[in-house]
Amino acid sequence: MSSHLHLNAFLMSVGHHEAAWRLPESDPHAHIDIDHFVRLAKIAERGKLDSIFFADSPVLMGDPGRRPGGKLEPTVILTAVAVQTSRIGLIATASTSYNDPYNLARRFASVDWVSNGRAGWNIVTTAGADAARNFGLDDTPDHRLRYEKAAEFVEVSTKLWDSWADDAVVADKELGIHADADKVRKIDHRGEFFKVEGPLNVPRSPQGYPLLVQAGSSEDGKEFAARHAEAVFTAQQTIEDALAFYADLKGRARALGRDPDTIKILPGIVPVIGDTEEQARALDAELTRLISPEYARQQLAERFRLPVDDLDLDSELPDVLPTEDDIEGAKSRFTLIVNLARRERLTLRQLIGRLGGGRGHRTFAGTPVQVADTIEDWFRRGAADGFNIMPAVLPSGLERFVDQVVPILQQRGLFRTEYTETTLRGHYGLARPVNQFEAADALVGTL
Amino acid sequence: MSSHLHLNAFLMSVGHHEAAWRLPESDPHAHIDIDHFVRLAKIAERGKLDSIFFADSPVLMGDPGRRPGGKLEPTVILTAVAVQTSRIGLIATASTSYNDPYNLARRFASVDWVSNGRAGWNIVTTAGADAARNFGLDDTPDHRLRYEKAAEFVEVSTKLWDSWADDAVVADKELGIHADADKVRKIDHRGEFFKVEGPLNVPRSPQGYPLLVQAGSSEDGKEFAARHAEAVFTAQQTIEDALAFYADLKGRARALGRDPDTIKILPGIVPVIGDTEEQARALDAELTRLISPEYARQQLAERFRLPVDDLDLDSELPDVLPTEDDIEGAKSRFTLIVNLARRERLTLRQLIGRLGGGRGHRTFAGTPVQVADTIEDWFRRGAADGFNIMPAVLPSGLERFVDQVVPILQQRGLFRTEYTETTLRGHYGLARPVNQFEAADALVGTL
Repeated sequence: MSSHLHLNAFLMSVGHHEAAWRLPESDPHAHIDIDHFVRLAKIAERGKLDSIFFADSPVLMGDPGRRPGGKLEPTVILTAVAVQTSRIGLIATASTSYNDPYNLARRFASVDWVSNGRAGWNIVTTAGADAARNFGLDDTPDHRLRYEKAAEFVEVSTKLWDSWADDAVVADKELGIHADADKVRKIDHRGEFFKVEGPLNVPRSPQGYPLLVQAGSSEDGKEFAARHAEAVFTAQQTIEDALAFYADLKGRARALGRDPDTIKILPGIVPVIGDTEEQARALDAELTRLISPEYARQQLAERFRLPVDDLDLDSELPDVLPTEDDIEGAKSRFTLIVNLARRERLTLRQLIGRLGGGRGHRTFAGTPVQVADTIEDWFRRGAADGFNIMPAVLPSGLERFVDQVVPILQQRGLFRTEYTETTLRGHYGLARPVNQFEAADALVGTL
Repeated sequence: MSSHLHLNAFLMSVGHHEAAWRLPESDPHAHIDIDHFVRLAKIAERGKLDSIFFADSPVLMGDPGRRPGGKLEPTVILTAVAVQTSRIGLIATASTSYNDPYNLARRFASVDWVSNGRAGWNIVTTAGADAARNFGLDDTPDHRLRYEKAAEFVEVSTKLWDSWADDAVVADKELGIHADADKVRKIDHRGEFFKVEGPLNVPRSPQGYPLLVQAGSSEDGKEFAARHAEAVFTAQQTIEDALAFYADLKGRARALGRDPDTIKILPGIVPVIGDTEEQARALDAELTRLISPEYARQQLAERFRLPVDDLDLDSELPDVLPTEDDIEGAKSRFTLIVNLARRERLTLRQLIGRLGGGRGHRTFAGTPVQVADTIEDWFRRGAADGFNIMPAVLPSGLERFVDQVVPILQQRGLFRTEYTETTLRGHYGLARPVNQFEAADALVGTL
């Protein structure tokens, strides 16, 4: 367990609640306004948070008729934020199924340079036939295959990032020697999915390479995380589930020879904060009221692969549902939602209210002290190294968290009061990765 | 001919001269320092230039031992500059051979949003086996094939950019309707190279889409430019060649039914500016002195596909050389260099000096008045709509141009004294493109 907890702000246009844009306070054009995201980043930095995070998929998600459609490309957002902040870590999702490793590795290396070592990459394989159809495919590749490709993608990327030794550049004007050419290496990668010669056309960046983040909790996802991830975002509804997930993933990492402390686990929480419990619940109820129930019912039908007429808003979920094996993406999220609905015997209408805020992440409506209490409880009991904070409404939800919850966590000695490090890995207490080729050379030197 | 000339600053780390990094004034780490590029952009904006431009290739170019190796990814640079400037246009190269249209169209749309309509895309097909080998190929695809793919890439991209009508977003909070879903369209593109469903996950951007720029002067390149380009960068050593190129390209555009004024032609010029002619020539000579002749000889041998031993520094080019047909990329540049060497009967050593500054672009050493004179001459005689300014040394070369040459051009009434427009297309006097699907709908409406 970490001695201090880590906090990431997961930022989504005007908030994670799907109806947030309909509140009077919300700017319905904020999702394409870079100033909005810079403002949010500065609030997070004021709160000394470890990082901010932008999810992504290369497809228009959801019905643009019903909620703000489209997103600025996340490495563009990270860059704009990077040059207008100085400490906050910057994490973005990018797909291993629909990018070339050379281009993506280079873009993240560039963001790491521009931010002076604050870049992080949330590695996703991208489920969904609609995304596949933007890239020449008719359907999404098989789940297992996507993860195999992702593993090789990460392998190629780390080779490219390591293709320049840290001390390759000598910049000797007198001799006219800019770099020691022996320390800039081709990688000559030839694998099952990729053939890449290298070297990268960006020198090794301040962090060596971006923090590697992962967010899938399926069996394949956990195996991948145990091998590659340095930070993990996960959806957990109960502390029991969170404890089990935490122990499972740390155990897998240990079994692979990793120090379990080098993989930080951050469950999501959607805090709906009020000065009083009553006020918090009223905001939550107002947001639920603004959800279009018919649209939500249709989305549930799609998620469960059922005819929309089989779903009655005032009944519970049907007894017979597909299994996780039938679902191509967000497998563990599917099971989580079914379990939530069955455990609490929710009607569809109630379930829709519960999902509206966090799409399966844990929503918690309460006072700042109550939010701090639940964070402390999960952290102290070993269910989390920190939290992925997903404000239902932005910027107000993030402001309340930073100005009202963070000070309580600081007073309790659970969270930093000042940044002590300058890089994203530094904030998470992780070491800068050793260059794999330098390590190999050093080994040869000792033989 | 345009009534006012247009000026683009082509920015390359510490300058276009390959030895610029060795000057005492140069920061040899500037190529990976975003603050350097922001500083350059602000100088260009102070000079009221139309735009700045960053070339690119997804490969480590040249020998990193001999000059600064690697580059930050250009859309990352554009973004960082966008949020720290307000008017200057922002153009970057991206390859149609080594990107997916969905990802690239989205990234440029994002940069256009972030910059409030200042993005431009220099469309290149990327020659070179070394680049190909970073993307799973053994060799570069055939020249003609690359251009066919580029044409389809641009077609897919404009469809994606037009997949949202300009008035699609209504943002009606009361009704819970964010966009008119009928105005967000799938594109269902099925072509020879690409199959893309769409719609794009970014609403139509301030300019509709980025300014389309092109820089190839081969036969395929000119045909492509005549069809698609709104601005063209070109290398021309003599005014006769420039006049012929200008007339040729405008004629091709006219033959395709385009108003020739909607395609702006900007030859490159490498101005080496001194207070006196003597000072300018001294700087030029100092830069030539700093070139490594052996390294340059080797590069010439590669360009001409000859054994390096066949090239004698103190002789002229061999009589027998490959032809343009034998060369896979930079075809017209190859011919330009051969013609330059033969016309002026240059020894290899002299040719190396002439190429060191601009790789075939026209180098002009002189006083501010002399530089302004040659610009005015070419512009008034119909050889150019403007110029692609390629400072040999940065930032000093750009500062001198902006502070000493631009005021002369302004006094002569040739160049703007204040920005009158806010977008990149606005600066170049070009109209915002009509949405192709809206135009089609309007046509249906009139039937």
